[in-house]
Amino acid sequence: MKPHTLSAFDRDLEAISLNVLTMGGHVEAAIMNAARALEQRDEDLAAQVVQGDKVIDAAEEEINNQVVRLLALRQPHADDLRAAVAVMKMAGELERLGDYAKNMGKRVPILINAPMIEGAAGALRRQARLVGHMLKDMLDAFARMDAELARDVITRDIEVDDMTNALFREFITHMMEDPRNITPCLHYVFIAKNIERMGDLVTHGAEQVIFVTEGRHAEPREKGHSTATIAGPKE
Amino acid sequence: MKPHTLSAFDRDLEAISLNVLTMGGHVEAAIMNAARALEQRDEDLAAQVVQGDKVIDAAEEEINNQVVRLLALRQPHADDLRAAVAVMKMAGELERLGDYAKNMGKRVPILINAPMIEGAAGALRRQARLVGHMLKDMLDAFARMDAELARDVITRDIEVDDMTNALFREFITHMMEDPRNITPCLHYVFIAKNIERMGDLVTHGAEQVIFVTEGRHAEPREKGHSTATIAGPKE
Repeated sequence: MKPHTLSAFDRDLEAISLNVLTMGGHVEAAIMNAARALEQRDEDLAAQVVQGDKVIDAAEEEINNQVVRLLALRQPHADDLRAAVAVMKMAGELERLGDYAKNMGKRVPILINAPMIEGAAGALRRQARLVGHMLKDMLDAFARMDAELARDVITRDIEVDDMTNALFREFITHMMEDPRNITPCLHYVFIAKNIERMGDLVTHGAEQVIFVTEGRHAEPREKGHSTATIAGPKE
Repeated sequence: MKPHTLSAFDRDLEAISLNVLTMGGHVEAAIMNAARALEQRDEDLAAQVVQGDKVIDAAEEEINNQVVRLLALRQPHADDLRAAVAVMKMAGELERLGDYAKNMGKRVPILINAPMIEGAAGALRRQARLVGHMLKDMLDAFARMDAELARDVITRDIEVDDMTNALFREFITHMMEDPRNITPCLHYVFIAKNIERMGDLVTHGAEQVIFVTEGRHAEPREKGHSTATIAGPKE
């Protein structure tokens, strides 16, 4: 439980954390919109996602500046310092998530002009939706410093990994059936891999929430189960 | 030019920067060894790279702790604060580079048991060597706060991108020629993409060097030239 008296530092950090949550909302929307643009072959929406990444990048830079100013002004020690650094790291993770959404958006116009792969875009949208929901819950966990919810998010990343592996098998089948499918399927493979990485980043954010809440690193997730597949070894 | 009188803060930050350079040396070795293990089909060397990533991760954590302790102890303002945060970010970039090298190492035993793709591993090693040399020079630029060398590193990333695109075209040809090549080629595609991303991370590190040296962000590199290719849009 937090004490009821908030220090000036706490108030300032809370204000910055609200900016992180707003930034997180933009990233969540970017992921969902990129996946929708892909499924509905909506070039305008995809362009919007690509353009919108500038807002996300600017938000990260602003949050970094705010944290640096907070450190200079309040000169916090120990736990407070760690919490401030964690907020900056969270903004960094969100910025990378935004990059992946932007990358997905950039592939949409390429894929609109390539042979259709039946069912691929719909499956990728379901995969992206899983990650979008994980991100939403991770941000809730961050806002409430809820380690239990953060742990739940980490567990769900396994579903994303399993889905990625299933998708890869499907794309390989399409590539083997018809060489003309190879080029578009490579784009789908990259999108699936990027969504899987987004899941890893969200997991990493959830680990940060647990770290700040409980003052220690979360148990690293078991990573062994997907190494023998094409989706490939985790970094 | 640096003033000749070093503050206690400067001395402490310099000690931490030396740890960053040592960490960078490990990462450079990991990249070169992963590429060599791939070309020479050396499973032991690959396993060494995978295991060695723990040392790199531990180095990042230690550097983070050192920077947090330095901030708490010296309570620096303005430029000093920014320089300390930049050192922490540099360690973060190196950690991610290490992850990519580890990922490459993990694919080696899989590829040893897959159909050979003539010339692929050698080409990837040349691509990795380019990035390894960029990293070496980026670390030199960081050690000497040499913005000119950092700019040179940024320029060279275009070679990596061009090489990635050429490799992708080659892998696609192999996949089209024989469906049995599809699975191994997908691994090669991921490795090439990861090496390209390593180049982006090194570029990002070089931009940080310029930022700290000149107190402003480096001009973002022109990113338009590769968007229409399979190697794909930049994030």
